[in-house]
Amino acid sequence: MREDPALLALDWGTSSLRAYALGEGGVVLDTRRSEHGVMNLPTGPGIDTPSAAFEAVLQGLCGDWLAAHPHTPMIACGMVGSAQGWREARYQPLPARASELATALTVIERPGGQPLHVVPGLLQAGELPNVMRGEETQIAGVLQSLADEGRLPERLLVGLPGTHTKWAWVEDGAVVRFETFMTGEVYAALSQHTILGRTMVLGSPHDESAFGRGLRVAQSELGAMGVLSTVFSVRTLGLTRQLAGEAQPDYLSGLLIGHEVAALAPVVGAGLPVVLCGEAVLCLRYATALEARGLPPPDIRAGVTPLGLWRIGQAAGLVRTH
Amino acid sequence: MREDPALLALDWGTSSLRAYALGEGGVVLDTRRSEHGVMNLPTGPGIDTPSAAFEAVLQGLCGDWLAAHPHTPMIACGMVGSAQGWREARYQPLPARASELATALTVIERPGGQPLHVVPGLLQAGELPNVMRGEETQIAGVLQSLADEGRLPERLLVGLPGTHTKWAWVEDGAVVRFETFMTGEVYAALSQHTILGRTMVLGSPHDESAFGRGLRVAQSELGAMGVLSTVFSVRTLGLTRQLAGEAQPDYLSGLLIGHEVAALAPVVGAGLPVVLCGEAVLCLRYATALEARGLPPPDIRAGVTPLGLWRIGQAAGLVRTH
Repeated sequence: MREDPALLALDWGTSSLRAYALGEGGVVLDTRRSEHGVMNLPTGPGIDTPSAAFEAVLQGLCGDWLAAHPHTPMIACGMVGSAQGWREARYQPLPARASELATALTVIERPGGQPLHVVPGLLQAGELPNVMRGEETQIAGVLQSLADEGRLPERLLVGLPGTHTKWAWVEDGAVVRFETFMTGEVYAALSQHTILGRTMVLGSPHDESAFGRGLRVAQSELGAMGVLSTVFSVRTLGLTRQLAGEAQPDYLSGLLIGHEVAALAPVVGAGLPVVLCGEAVLCLRYATALEARGLPPPDIRAGVTPLGLWRIGQAAGLVRTH
Repeated sequence: MREDPALLALDWGTSSLRAYALGEGGVVLDTRRSEHGVMNLPTGPGIDTPSAAFEAVLQGLCGDWLAAHPHTPMIACGMVGSAQGWREARYQPLPARASELATALTVIERPGGQPLHVVPGLLQAGELPNVMRGEETQIAGVLQSLADEGRLPERLLVGLPGTHTKWAWVEDGAVVRFETFMTGEVYAALSQHTILGRTMVLGSPHDESAFGRGLRVAQSELGAMGVLSTVFSVRTLGLTRQLAGEAQPDYLSGLLIGHEVAALAPVVGAGLPVVLCGEAVLCLRYATALEARGLPPPDIRAGVTPLGLWRIGQAAGLVRTH
């Protein structure tokens, strides 16, 4: 590393762990990746508790960092703080700023080393409660990256497309509301475990026209019967030779994202800036869906989790502020 | 059998075959069932073509009927007439009465026996086409059973709950419009192949209160974000200890059926009589959902497929009319 790290930051999710050595200002000095997500921990001699498994993964991936920098503080976000994680980090209620997340870190003591500080998830209480875990840190990263550019608006909508897409309304730096759509996971379940998959040719090149067709159906009167009905058109358009098997995956993707954005649009305030954060290809699909629904083109960001961890670590006093 | 059958009628679907020996008026004289649905045909010596497999299943289940009554006409409906079936029976356009179905039977010649007459499916053409295959015969059976009781209204809505629930608008005995909802299959995919299944205790006793709670969410302002969003509440209500794992399957069922009926309700004309036909437990769930949405209590029927096959066979002149 070019300089000593100021913070070791872990994005520890269900299927993988990303570790970042962060320098001043949250600059990424070094990064590493392991497949040992929370749902894929190692077993073997000496690993007789979940804690031992988490510690073994951490040492395996970052043992040299920990040995070389024994006094560097450590922070983590994601499913590592779930009931199936290293230690359950309770949820933080809304409204929530980075500073509130920072006061609610769960501290996991590690014999012979620095403790691990785990960022809480967010809980939106109510008749239909909502939760996030990991995305609160991405949002903190989005807000910090906008602030670093002097472009943080007072109010904005942050969309985090993924398996479970999150949409968070932010006011004065605080998450005040969020919604979850299981769009990504529903897409996978429909294409792999229903009759729709029988005629779909998965792995085909992206078909923007088929995607746009799905969007139009979902966002027009044709979609009035709702997604439980429109998805059947993947099959009927195939049976009537109006949609090739190769085009069906993107048509279904357009239908689902189209229904999601159509439901969301009425509660997006007029002129509210939208920022999307996530995998580029998926963000572009959502950007197309937003534009098709008459919403302004979103700003698109990626890779902001280390910056979010830095921001929260800084607010918690784990790192020096200059 | 008490009397010679006038018609041998087959309800040959994806997962099973039901055979009926029908007497005058469509009375069921005898019935048999085989697991050899279209997607589960036998293989073995002498079965070297799909046709041979279908013939072998037919002989295995009804060989004695065919031998004892070699001149009795034979009719079938269902996936046996699909592209994966014995012979593809083309779709009939709307509007469609039993008499139109009867003029469009596909005839499969059988060496040394009576031909098999296969009922066409229905195709609703349009930008979002819709198809049914098998349900057209159930609808014919529903209409015939109502007519037999002198209670056939001029206009009605027929609901056929199932893996793919169909809703058919009938005017003057003709199907003039229909919609499909993949509700049953989506339920199975969500509960077996998404994160929701992890906390659900499947096979629990029916929980009417949880079902009603799902209905209320879907049919109120809480459901405004749509089904892609509300289904996540199965998990969040579980995480916040507001919904036990045992109650989650019926809550999800209520959510999905609630969204389906909420989408359907605006296009059900005021005062339009509704008849449900299908498995009793499922029909009762839909009846509850209809009532919760302010629609009149439906008439519930079951087991009308043989009567529908009789009605179509009669209209085709396969059986004598007295």
